[in-house]
Amino acid sequence: MSTDASPRTPLADRSPDELRSFLEEKRAAYATLVERGLRLDLTRGKPSAEQLDLSEALLSLPDGHTDRAGTDVRNYGGLEGLVELREMFAELLGVETAQIVAGGNASLTMMHDVLVFHLLHGGLDSPRPWKDEEVVRFVCPVPGYDRHYTMLESYGIEMVTVPMLADGPDVDAVEALVRDDPSVKGMWIVPTYANPAGSVVTQEVAARLASMPAAAPDFRIFWDNAYALHHLTEDEAKSADIVSLASAGGHPHRPVVFASTSKVTLAGAGVAFLAGSRETVQWYLGHLKFASIGPDKVNHLRHVQFFGSPDGVRAHMAEHRRILAPKFAAVDAALSAELDGLGIAEWTRPRGGYFVSLDVPDGCAARIVALAKDAGIALTPAGASFPHGRDPHDRNIRLAPSFPVLDEVETAMAGVATCVALAAAEQLVGDVG
Amino acid sequence: MSTDASPRTPLADRSPDELRSFLEEKRAAYATLVERGLRLDLTRGKPSAEQLDLSEALLSLPDGHTDRAGTDVRNYGGLEGLVELREMFAELLGVETAQIVAGGNASLTMMHDVLVFHLLHGGLDSPRPWKDEEVVRFVCPVPGYDRHYTMLESYGIEMVTVPMLADGPDVDAVEALVRDDPSVKGMWIVPTYANPAGSVVTQEVAARLASMPAAAPDFRIFWDNAYALHHLTEDEAKSADIVSLASAGGHPHRPVVFASTSKVTLAGAGVAFLAGSRETVQWYLGHLKFASIGPDKVNHLRHVQFFGSPDGVRAHMAEHRRILAPKFAAVDAALSAELDGLGIAEWTRPRGGYFVSLDVPDGCAARIVALAKDAGIALTPAGASFPHGRDPHDRNIRLAPSFPVLDEVETAMAGVATCVALAAAEQLVGDVG
Repeated sequence: MSTDASPRTPLADRSPDELRSFLEEKRAAYATLVERGLRLDLTRGKPSAEQLDLSEALLSLPDGHTDRAGTDVRNYGGLEGLVELREMFAELLGVETAQIVAGGNASLTMMHDVLVFHLLHGGLDSPRPWKDEEVVRFVCPVPGYDRHYTMLESYGIEMVTVPMLADGPDVDAVEALVRDDPSVKGMWIVPTYANPAGSVVTQEVAARLASMPAAAPDFRIFWDNAYALHHLTEDEAKSADIVSLASAGGHPHRPVVFASTSKVTLAGAGVAFLAGSRETVQWYLGHLKFASIGPDKVNHLRHVQFFGSPDGVRAHMAEHRRILAPKFAAVDAALSAELDGLGIAEWTRPRGGYFVSLDVPDGCAARIVALAKDAGIALTPAGASFPHGRDPHDRNIRLAPSFPVLDEVETAMAGVATCVALAAAEQLVGDVG
Repeated sequence: MSTDASPRTPLADRSPDELRSFLEEKRAAYATLVERGLRLDLTRGKPSAEQLDLSEALLSLPDGHTDRAGTDVRNYGGLEGLVELREMFAELLGVETAQIVAGGNASLTMMHDVLVFHLLHGGLDSPRPWKDEEVVRFVCPVPGYDRHYTMLESYGIEMVTVPMLADGPDVDAVEALVRDDPSVKGMWIVPTYANPAGSVVTQEVAARLASMPAAAPDFRIFWDNAYALHHLTEDEAKSADIVSLASAGGHPHRPVVFASTSKVTLAGAGVAFLAGSRETVQWYLGHLKFASIGPDKVNHLRHVQFFGSPDGVRAHMAEHRRILAPKFAAVDAALSAELDGLGIAEWTRPRGGYFVSLDVPDGCAARIVALAKDAGIALTPAGASFPHGRDPHDRNIRLAPSFPVLDEVETAMAGVATCVALAAAEQLVGDVG
């Protein structure tokens, strides 16, 4: 939501002449922008080199090669991961050590494994493997994370969307979808600082999701807590304890929690985690054992030594915040400077996570992304935050300011703001250049 | 095959009194063995601490964090793995760089992914996903690797066995199974120093497997070249070039090759590889991209810097041989000392790999494993090298001498030999203690 403090006249209130004059002004600004020959990238939520440097010490760890119990971490085994790392992240994620597994370098892989095991074997409480169902549907809050959708799409799973609100998915809509249709087998949620809107699922919404009646006995919540620790302010959101809530709600195996250190230590070389009821963990390991003898425990030990304790992780995240918060402020400043008061755009000011969600006039998002591209500013494709890459209103743009250095974020976002103003003016004037 | 140089009389040629005397002698020896209270483990093909120490330098690598192209290996991306590592192992495995992918820490995971993708999507040339077939069968040479069987079993895939001979699987039997039955979708092979028999698939057998007619258009050879580089003598086996042979034979997508550095660098923290036709690689990556943003490229860079070149890998493997060869010699010496000439046991003297395959009188394997266990010597369960863990003759025992130190291998194998002699005598006398 942009502020209303600007003295500018909203575009919708301007005369045709004023609008044409505004359009020419923005065309000139855009021409100047293109002449600069920028090459900037705001496409993906990747940590910057400066953030990765925070974990430089990891590259010369571990010291020694035995875990607390004296086991040689270099050898095979230990499918559930190093217990001291599981303890550390159990505390951070609010679960018990027996409820968490430490895996490889990608929570996405764990999500895929869980989906595949449900398809081929079925889950706890499944009447049959999901591959033997006529149709399998997932509830997808939108806007959301593109890789969640593409994974489902690759297996032919149908996606039913609900709006993502400030307090989480529209829970009335979710309850209505789940209650009577046994083909609705699951839903995705990024509960904390959601990709891209920055929403945080409240305790109340989480409690309803955890306890709502579901026609499918094996209904699963894929609770992708990718940004659990990724605060941008000192007002730190506390993730709802979905595992306990589900247990209290009579559906202990409903949630499967995912997290990772990809945006804590190294994006390609971190550690991923899966959590859930003890039975969920055993179910997962019971299938995983045919595909793995164990995760990279050397990397687990490396992380244990690097962090030292849960507080070590928290202190490390404060360093990320120090780097990231100014970039998010720059996004807001650039958009405000150009667009405040024009009544053509709204954007989020997230308290955590990696994204700003920008809403522009309906029908303008793809045009803005194309304009930015021609000016050397790569944005996530319009529609990427919706199933099948199709935003029904063509109005949402996901901005990812973490990777470029601050100067580049400022430059890129000023350019993006110019593109937004230009596209809105083109639409109002009815003259797409 | 044990030598015939001993002056001993085979047990089968001894009189009842001689046999009873032999039995009492072995019972006494076994009682002495049990009294020693050993705790030794020959169960799994795990590298020893001394072998893992060869890669100690890995633990403080990499230096820097960019690959040859200047890409920051700490960040996301690069699904196919670091090109310099792929080049190195392309040379070692005899494929082109475009035909190989470097992945995570486990070739078993890559095998599982390939199987799952065939089940849920189907492969190149598949008329439909394998999940939609009435029945899927795999040809399994026996004895073989237990994890191959348990993976298939977990997905309800039927296993049809053929004998593993000195030059590879009984190729007449394989051809007959594959030619007319479209439900036979694949086969496992460990082509070089096979687990457990040490066989090496010859060029001739490989060429027949690569070109034989198959009723299933999507028949796959899972070519698990786990021991490609793991020579125990200077007479180094050269793995057949199955990818080129299959291409020449008109079935370019038939083989999927797997390998890893689990028994080269660190068993839990190495790098796994998948190879095949370019189309196979693209097919694999085309499905993998929904499950991963990329492998641990930091670990890839670590390995590139540690080895330096393919010759660096070869030199490193010579160090392993220096450690392992005496252990394999100790197995042979202990078995020969106790059993030569008795006509009750045969065993392999492999030129590479991690195992000795010991054949005992029919019906005695489980008894011997139980006797050893009671004497504190853990052996792989009898039957483990057969589908469903059932050796139809109960005669094969897999010995894995890599993990214990040399002294322990000598002690354990002398004990195993005592158990073999005792069990054989019990059977001949008809008096199981």
